Amino acid sequence: MLAEIITIGDELLIGQVIDTNSAFIAQTLNNIGASIYQITSVQDDRAHILQAFKDAESRVDIIIITGGLGPTKDDITKKTIAEYFNDTLVRDVAVTKNIEEIWKKYVRQTLLQINKDQALVPSKATVLMNELGTAPGMWLEKEEKTFVSLPGVPFEMKKLLVSKVIPKLKEKYQFPFILHKTLLTYGLGESTVAKRIEAWEDALPENIRLAYLPRLGSVRLRLSSKGFNPEEVQKNINDQIQKVLPLIEDAFVGFEDEAKSLEMLIANRLTQSGKTLAIAESCTGGDLAEQFTSNAGASAYFNGGVVTYATASKTKVLGVPKELIEKHSVVSAEVVEAMAKSVRDLFNSDYGVATTGNAGPSKGDSDADVGTVFIAIASKDSIVSQSFMLGSARKRVIKKAVNKALEMLEKEILKN
Amino acid sequence: MLAEIITIGDELLIGQVIDTNSAFIAQTLNNIGASIYQITSVQDDRAHILQAFKDAESRVDIIIITGGLGPTKDDITKKTIAEYFNDTLVRDVAVTKNIEEIWKKYVRQTLLQINKDQALVPSKATVLMNELGTAPGMWLEKEEKTFVSLPGVPFEMKKLLVSKVIPKLKEKYQFPFILHKTLLTYGLGESTVAKRIEAWEDALPENIRLAYLPRLGSVRLRLSSKGFNPEEVQKNINDQIQKVLPLIEDAFVGFEDEAKSLEMLIANRLTQSGKTLAIAESCTGGDLAEQFTSNAGASAYFNGGVVTYATASKTKVLGVPKELIEKHSVVSAEVVEAMAKSVRDLFNSDYGVATTGNAGPSKGDSDADVGTVFIAIASKDSIVSQSFMLGSARKRVIKKAVNKALEMLEKEILKN
Repeated sequence: MLAEIITIGDELLIGQVIDTNSAFIAQTLNNIGASIYQITSVQDDRAHILQAFKDAESRVDIIIITGGLGPTKDDITKKTIAEYFNDTLVRDVAVTKNIEEIWKKYVRQTLLQINKDQALVPSKATVLMNELGTAPGMWLEKEEKTFVSLPGVPFEMKKLLVSKVIPKLKEKYQFPFILHKTLLTYGLGESTVAKRIEAWEDALPENIRLAYLPRLGSVRLRLSSKGFNPEEVQKNINDQIQKVLPLIEDAFVGFEDEAKSLEMLIANRLTQSGKTLAIAESCTGGDLAEQFTSNAGASAYFNGGVVTYATASKTKVLGVPKELIEKHSVVSAEVVEAMAKSVRDLFNSDYGVATTGNAGPSKGDSDADVGTVFIAIASKDSIVSQSFMLGSARKRVIKKAVNKALEMLEKEILKN
Repeated sequence: MLAEIITIGDELLIGQVIDTNSAFIAQTLNNIGASIYQITSVQDDRAHILQAFKDAESRVDIIIITGGLGPTKDDITKKTIAEYFNDTLVRDVAVTKNIEEIWKKYVRQTLLQINKDQALVPSKATVLMNELGTAPGMWLEKEEKTFVSLPGVPFEMKKLLVSKVIPKLKEKYQFPFILHKTLLTYGLGESTVAKRIEAWEDALPENIRLAYLPRLGSVRLRLSSKGFNPEEVQKNINDQIQKVLPLIEDAFVGFEDEAKSLEMLIANRLTQSGKTLAIAESCTGGDLAEQFTSNAGASAYFNGGVVTYATASKTKVLGVPKELIEKHSVVSAEVVEAMAKSVRDLFNSDYGVATTGNAGPSKGDSDADVGTVFIAIASKDSIVSQSFMLGSARKRVIKKAVNKALEMLEKEILKN
């Protein structure tokens, strides 16, 4: 079963907005066994939108459309959908009621005409009620083909897709079972991984697809297979995983469906063992703490952290001796180890993590080259630290340092 | 002058990776006056890639291709490009040398065959040397049409695009001048903004385009115009800005080309006035600090911060009296104000910002409803605090709280 995604909006074509909706839609449809054939972003332009609809309809069964459904005048999506279906816009009573309720509850201002007009929908459309916003979802059919139009606001789109669109698609079509299993590895380069698993990869059966997904300091290996017998698909994938795991054992940290990322893997481990964590950041500036706190349940294991950006604050807040900083410089193994121990104790935690370095672009409070980063992990009775040269692009230095810190922390946790 | 972007990779179509390259490419091309007609994401599939090339070539002059240029076996982009141009792959001497140098400098392991083969390029291609990685960029021409293939790794792609592709495009084509000017507003809803500027919008001349770009708690208004006379385009846009500004004066905080965001606007103001900032975060968990530290130059004004996630750490690290927390609860105006003052003093700063609240999904160390957030700004001699109800979706609560804190901070800075 094939689907396409069409995202509409000038803001995408001038690059002012990154299209995050498509990845979510693709993932969600993939999970029910629909393959996305193509993703197309087009302008807020009637003729262009009509052409994109026509092209997609000629290739696939399911067309998911997002964007351009705000209350303002740059919205032409709805009119164009009506035109494509030789239809006219009519006012939907239930949508009108929903808009009025949302307005009463959250906005507490007079309802404007442009908001009222969000209740206009093509007469042939089945309305998918949007409980989180004023722009309704719409479901339209053309023989066996289905067009679904969703609001562009990500959290409204997501709710509608998951709660309304997926069940309706499952009712109408029969989907195969698709399984993706992604192995997370840290510390090896893409070509080193490729070299190690070459013989295994060459012997992979036709019905299993392998993809390399490199990220900073990490390579993800994705195995995919599909079929109408879930047990068989599952078995085929598992058999291959049993074969490949020994080849990359030292770099393998977990599966992506267990934990989306290394920080979530660490979060799970800490929560299960009842251990706690505190973080002292200099060059990573809060980014490391945020990796944990952005996920629900962080309060179970994350006691807190400090961002001691200025050198003076390392002494004042963390109590790192001024003499130690003067002797070894603020970017040093001695200082990062003192920071890790101090933050561990300050927050009464089992683990203390610290970073200090120079993310650039210019030299800071030390003579360290741009890209130099020291990271330390203080456990209950031991401390490890390491230094890295992480290049010269600021955001990449920070991101890489965060990844390295996670990698080191994971190793320490596994030791205990 | 029209262009299209084609991104290649199964990982995009199954939604495992968000396509951030397209927005960067679109933005960069737009800046030199090339309009992006369409962005298309296709699978790692020979026939599909060939079809996408053909379709794009029939519509536009410039086709930018990214993705699928890693050293591993899921790469079929290069072979397909050669096929499209009836060409064969040949080994490029300069690329081979570049790969060997990068290997020697960064990898320090034996060069593998798959890496050596990254030097294979279509014989008709002009190589765009990639100094940051092993996959070369390629420039191919077909009559007046241009195909450019770039590596999928974002920072390699960006460097090649800016330093090699743009100059070559400017040499080959004549571009009009495009100007976008984006007004940042905070605090008003999209339809309220629309209502206020309705008469102005209706009277906009044909050659000026307006788009609404809503974000959490903020609406951006983008005015665009193009032409071959830069002064005229500039004047047309400025005239309209003079007219619209008085209508949204209370919500307007700046232009996006001066500062990409409110945090950068604040950063500029603080740096210029020599004032400093410290942040104490509870529910925002480091996200607020990271808004500042992710940008270069943060050390000029950002002294540091603490993430006091656990209640006990608010007392231990920030010295917020235990009795105050017991009396008013940890999510209260009294506690957030104490946090703001304390962090300001702890880091010897001019401003102290603090957040405390419950981002959900479950209740934390207080009885506060999920979504309740208190924010305080401590200036040199005064302190303000405010409470908000920010919904129930964790990541949105955090994001909204960060925005509200920035908004409040901006107001305090403007007072002084």
